[in-house]
Amino acid sequence: MRQRNVKNKKEIIENSKYFIDNPNDYKGVWKYLFQNDNPIHIEIGMGKGQFIIENALKYKDINFIGIEKFDSILALALKKVPDNLENLKMIRLDAINIEDVFEKEITTIYLNFSDPWPKARHEKRRLTSPNFLEKYEKIFACNNHIIMKTDNKDLFAYSIKSLNNYGYMIQDITFDLEARGDSDNIKSEYEEKFTKLNNPIYKIEVNKQKN
Amino acid sequence: MRQRNVKNKKEIIENSKYFIDNPNDYKGVWKYLFQNDNPIHIEIGMGKGQFIIENALKYKDINFIGIEKFDSILALALKKVPDNLENLKMIRLDAINIEDVFEKEITTIYLNFSDPWPKARHEKRRLTSPNFLEKYEKIFACNNHIIMKTDNKDLFAYSIKSLNNYGYMIQDITFDLEARGDSDNIKSEYEEKFTKLNNPIYKIEVNKQKN
Repeated sequence: MRQRNVKNKKEIIENSKYFIDNPNDYKGVWKYLFQNDNPIHIEIGMGKGQFIIENALKYKDINFIGIEKFDSILALALKKVPDNLENLKMIRLDAINIEDVFEKEITTIYLNFSDPWPKARHEKRRLTSPNFLEKYEKIFACNNHIIMKTDNKDLFAYSIKSLNNYGYMIQDITFDLEARGDSDNIKSEYEEKFTKLNNPIYKIEVNKQKN
Repeated sequence: MRQRNVKNKKEIIENSKYFIDNPNDYKGVWKYLFQNDNPIHIEIGMGKGQFIIENALKYKDINFIGIEKFDSILALALKKVPDNLENLKMIRLDAINIEDVFEKEITTIYLNFSDPWPKARHEKRRLTSPNFLEKYEKIFACNNHIIMKTDNKDLFAYSIKSLNNYGYMIQDITFDLEARGDSDNIKSEYEEKFTKLNNPIYKIEVNKQKN
């Protein structure tokens, strides 16, 4: 995501009760932070947070954790969170280190409009590369479940193949999410922008039983 | 495919040495007809035959069988075949009966611009439905191998899911075959038409080890 510098970002982040500064301390025990046994869904690269905040408002029986690596963007997301949202937390993290923060406790991973890393030599950085699928394997609880949306057809084609080859089963796939008129679909900021430009939005939902 | 009536179609078909009138008689023993042990590739719904004829001309060490159910189209395809093409045959068949004609002897199935059968109640007619995948299971030799091209994104999305759920591994997938500039790509008549209209061509290649 393109970054603007955000004034007082450090202050915003440090003063927000939704921000967890020491996520590594909760590895394997996030349920104690949330103080319940509800499923935990994470969004890797939450951007300005619209998608995960709306999800948290709508699904009170699910715990949500938004992950973002850039302070400027994280600050914008934290500023948006309404008061008293008990089922939402946000953390600062590069997904490459995701195994340091979670262990056998995640139900669903959302990947929304992830960086396509188009160059072949950057393949390992794509969030659906075997490199990352291997990491996710360690953080999922009893069943792997990934929901991905993108407007990038090359990343989408790559991801279909990668998920298929890794043993994931496709539950749902569409090449034009907007045309489907799914009223339950919660949009990220990017998705809203692309939809207005009439760019088709690709979506895939997959799962995999734990070995 | 839209059909024009073709004059003398019966005559053209009956007089062509490339036409096999009694395909059921060769079930399991097509290699005796070709008089060699080369791999056998079939195209289901070959239309006017351009794709399979060009393949037969280019790959002499592979035997090709074009399948078409309509006489008018079959006649047009047969008229196009150049002389002395020993590795090509054409048959009249509704794919629903494909198990009556082949048994454990096919290496590759080509599905080019198949009828999308968009209505949900016609799902079973789609050539990538579990209904057909089950039939293919019986005609493939030691490894299942399907190469599909289409310009229909709904059929493509459906096929990806269906093939994935049936246990196929994706070897290759693209959402814009033309953009890839693959000089080995042999086009069907439909593909040529759609490419000129700048419609993207979707392609997927999958395989599956025999159980």
